[in-house]
Order: sequence, then C-alpha cells, then structure tokens
Amino acid sequence: MTSCKVVLASELPQRAPPRVNLQIAALRNEIHKTITERGIRPKLVGFLANHDPAAVKYAEWTAKTCEETGVDFELRKIDKQELEDKVIEANEDDDVNGIMVYYPVFGDRQDQYLQNIISTGKDVEGLCHTFVQNMYHNVRYLDKEQKRKCIIPCTPLAIVKILEYIGVYNSVLPYGNHLYGKTITVINRSEVVGRPLAALLANDGARVFSVDINGVQEFSRGTGIKLRKHEVKDSGLSVEQCVPLSDVVITGVPTASYKLPTEWLKDGVVAINFSTHKNFSEDVKSRAAIYVPSVGKVTVAMLERNLLRLHDHQHGL
Amino acid sequence: MTSCKVVLASELPQRAPPRVNLQIAALRNEIHKTITERGIRPKLVGFLANHDPAAVKYAEWTAKTCEETGVDFELRKIDKQELEDKVIEANEDDDVNGIMVYYPVFGDRQDQYLQNIISTGKDVEGLCHTFVQNMYHNVRYLDKEQKRKCIIPCTPLAIVKILEYIGVYNSVLPYGNHLYGKTITVINRSEVVGRPLAALLANDGARVFSVDINGVQEFSRGTGIKLRKHEVKDSGLSVEQCVPLSDVVITGVPTASYKLPTEWLKDGVVAINFSTHKNFSEDVKSRAAIYVPSVGKVTVAMLERNLLRLHDHQHGL
Repeated sequence: MTSCKVVLASELPQRAPPRVNLQIAALRNEIHKTITERGIRPKLVGFLANHDPAAVKYAEWTAKTCEETGVDFELRKIDKQELEDKVIEANEDDDVNGIMVYYPVFGDRQDQYLQNIISTGKDVEGLCHTFVQNMYHNVRYLDKEQKRKCIIPCTPLAIVKILEYIGVYNSVLPYGNHLYGKTITVINRSEVVGRPLAALLANDGARVFSVDINGVQEFSRGTGIKLRKHEVKDSGLSVEQCVPLSDVVITGVPTASYKLPTEWLKDGVVAINFSTHKNFSEDVKSRAAIYVPSVGKVTVAMLERNLLRLHDHQHGL
Repeated sequence: MTSCKVVLASELPQRAPPRVNLQIAALRNEIHKTITERGIRPKLVGFLANHDPAAVKYAEWTAKTCEETGVDFELRKIDKQELEDKVIEANEDDDVNGIMVYYPVFGDRQDQYLQNIISTGKDVEGLCHTFVQNMYHNVRYLDKEQKRKCIIPCTPLAIVKILEYIGVYNSVLPYGNHLYGKTITVINRSEVVGRPLAALLANDGARVFSVDINGVQEFSRGTGIKLRKHEVKDSGLSVEQCVPLSDVVITGVPTASYKLPTEWLKDGVVAINFSTHKNFSEDVKSRAAIYVPSVGKVTVAMLERNLLRLHDHQHGL
C-alpha cells in the first residue's frame, strides 16, 4: 500500500467567491459602450400577457438593464387573446428592432406556436424554429456568405457565457472542442433551456448528461473532422450516478421543494442554478468551487447582445 | 296558458343511421379514380418511432388504405434519436412526395419541434408552423397567385369533411359562413386537433365552445365584409352549460374513463368522437340524430388527399 497524503477540507485554501457579478457589469458596460460610441438606440418591445411573478420580475429586470445600457425598451401589457395580432403588428413595424414575449402565456403547446409568430429577423430570444433548428444542427450563420450570425436562445447562451467567464471553457483546445474532457449534468430538458443547453455544450465537446423525469440521456459531440452536430443516446445511468461524475452541474427544476443532495456533488464542482427556485441547498458551497445561484441578469445582457445583432442585420451591417 | 302538443319520443320517426361508412368509400374511390386516370403513383413515407398502440394502428390503416387507393406507402420503423436526421434525408429525396410521423415520439414539446423539421412542401399532416399559422389566419393559399392551396391538419379536416357530408355545413349560405347559426362544442383544445378544429369551424361562421381543463373559450367569426380570422374570448360558461346549447358536440378526451353524460346532449344533436377512447356512452343514440364513433379512416383519406395536393405542387400542377 502506497502512502497517501491526506488534506483536510479546513486546510484547503479559501475558495474564490463567485465572480459572476463582475461579469454582469462587464457585459453591461460593453453593450453600453457599443451603443454610445455608435450613436444608435435599438428598440426592444416586450409583451407581457400574464401575471406570473417570475415573468413580471424578468420584465422589470429587462426594463432596468435596458435603461442603464441605452436600449429603448417598451413593455406592452396586453390580454393573451390579443397577443398574436400585436406581435404581428410589431413584426411589421420598422421602428422595432427586437421582440420578446414573457412566457408562460397559455402554459401549453400554444406557447410554442407563439414563439414562431415572431419573425426570425426580430426574435431576440432565439426561440423560433429556424434558430432552434440551426442551433441543434450546429449551423452558426443564417446565410451562406456567413455575414448574419444566428441567434442563440438567451438563457442557454447566458450559461455558456458564464462557463466561458469562469474558465470551464478552455480556449487552448481547438475551436468546437473547448469543453473536451468535461462532464456536465443538466437537470432540466425543456425545449426552451435544458435541451438546447445540452446540445450547445455537447457541440462544444463536452459529455453531457441531460436529466428529466423520463430519465438520463447522454449528449456527446460526433466524431470526425467536420464540425458535426451532437449525438444523443440513453445514458443507462441514474441522476445519482451521473452527478458525482460531473465537473459542472446545472439545475433548472421549477419546483420550490426540489433540492439536489449536496453529498452527490464532486468536490470542486461548478454549480449553476437557472431555476427561479433554489435547487441547491445552503451548504452547496462546502463542495462547489464556484456556485452561481441565478443567471437572470446575464440572460438580460444576452437579450441585449442579440438585439444589437438583429439591429445590425436589419441595417445590413 | 296556450295549448301545447306533446310528442312522445316513441312517436318520432326512426332516426337515420350514420352514413359515414358510405362517405369513406366515396372518398377512397375518388382518390383511387384520380390516381388511376392520371397514371401517377404518389409516394408517402411514414416514420414510426414508438410502440404506442394507437400509432401502430394508425400506421396499419395508412398502409391498408394506401394499398387500396394506389398510393405507394413506405413505413420506416426507426429509433426516436435517429428520427430527425431521417426526416431531413426524406425532405431531400425527390422520390418522396409526402412525409408523416406517427406521434407521440418524445411525448413533449420536442414533438412540436419535430413537426417543423418536415419541409412545408412535403408535410401531408399540415402540422408545420406555416400551415398552422395560415389555417388560424384563414389564409387559404401559399402564394399570391392562389395556385398552391395550403394543407389543413388531417384530423380537423376529416371532421370538417364529415360535417359537410352529413349536412351540418349549409352550402346555401355564403362562402365562409356555411356554419352560420350553428353552435358547436369541441372538448379538446390540443394544438394538433382541438384548437385548429375550433378555429376552422369559427372561420366558417359557427359559434364554437372550445373546452379543456383550463375552461371554456368561445371562438367566433369576426364580423365585417372581409374574410377575417376567428376571435377568441372566455365564454364564462361551464361545459355542462355549453353542451346543451350545441347542435354538434365533438369529443377528443384521451382517457378511457371519460364519458360525456348523455343527459347533457340536446335531442337531435350530431355527436362525433375523435378520441381513441369512446367518450360517449352506449346510450348516446337515444339523443343523437347522428353519431360518429371514430374519424380515423376519414383522416387517412385526408392524408391521401393532402398527398395528392403536395404531389401536384411539386410538379407545378
């Protein structure tokens, strides 16, 4: 038996605090600077057709951040039965550069129908079919000339940006493989966040366990020289088995009672929660090297980034 | 008090039996005749990526009907993870005129994503966003020249055809108002059948009560000269209140235990069930003038009708 040095947790160096707040300020400053230097005032219209507290809060954050960064944000509160017609009006209004809807509206598949009512050219959330299909297929431009970059859904994009910022993405590795060697669990496989996020991470080289009530799927990057889209198979693992294997654990369980058991987490894990409820327990910091309790503010910054991109597409820039 | 003639139920003339079987034969013969006379052999590819008994049965019916009518049907049984890529291959295959998928595949919003993977030009089920949006907006052609008619989702279309056949549509009334004066309840508001059906019926002039677990909405045709799309509002009624007002009651509740109470039905009602379960009780015929227990076979005929239309679009006809 070889000798083994034991390091007590109390002897470990103090962990670095989350630096996400710094990142939000940096992202916001960058957008503000771009808008100011270029002398533009892009206009975003948000439609609120519900009284969902999370949606109302998201609308308030959008308004606040837009004011700080110089984006002209207009919140239109309307009845859900009017929503479709009002979105179509905004599609046709040249003064509007971007459109978003605060979901849920009907709370069922009709919401997915509404996502496709917003024209591709104004879809800041990146939820219309064209953008979603391109994202799953790793198609990064709308045009063959590679001038118009696709929009990526805001929340998954925000989480990717956070992972880049905190060093999970390794830019020394070749492009398309920046996450090579990383194992990531995403607990949520919704069409709006969880599944696109798993695909984005797998397209960048990670081994991703995608968890929902129906089981655990494994998303991985296809092999070969060509930048291919991810592949999906049943993992054969339970969530208790895949979480301890993961360098990063990302949660988005929409229930207040759900808490991921801290003892499942590997020491030094990166823990990110995008649910409006806290899916990690208070003691998560006893295991996590970095803990990001919410991603809402980065998501709003991504909305603005997408808005700038659509503004430039509309002006042929 | 004025005198009042009482007619006992036993004195009423014998009710006419359902004539739907005749209609199925007529529709099938018409398609067979068209294919034979024109010497064409349109090809339909169906993808089955589940073991759902209703889906398997639907696939069997498709195969049988296609053989009888001269349509070249190929059933491709595949793993659900391969489905997206295989659909895209079929989109690009000039030998394939129409594509359909037997749902449910994933049983969640990912199925709605898959509906949009089938190219508009090959979507026999009419479930891609372009066709669905056009149907809701009462846009009947894909092109300004009005040469390429839109595809309408098969099951709602089958129910409309049944209502036309059994005389609920009144062709004496002006076009776009053939259902004027009729009250119809549709118990199901799914994005695949119930909501499109309610919209189609309202666009044709009916007052439609659309029922689901969230309540009863009222769909009605907008007023004015122009052929406008339907309007939707909360009805303020319960299902117990709207069923007795209805000339036609259409059910699609996907549970075996659900039975619509026969005593709610108005005497002489037209009762149509599109659920795979029998939503009307055995004694429904004691009230209904016409009872249609299932619409599956007419739906397959509509698939073929849509296939012929797409075949002709592809050949510039």
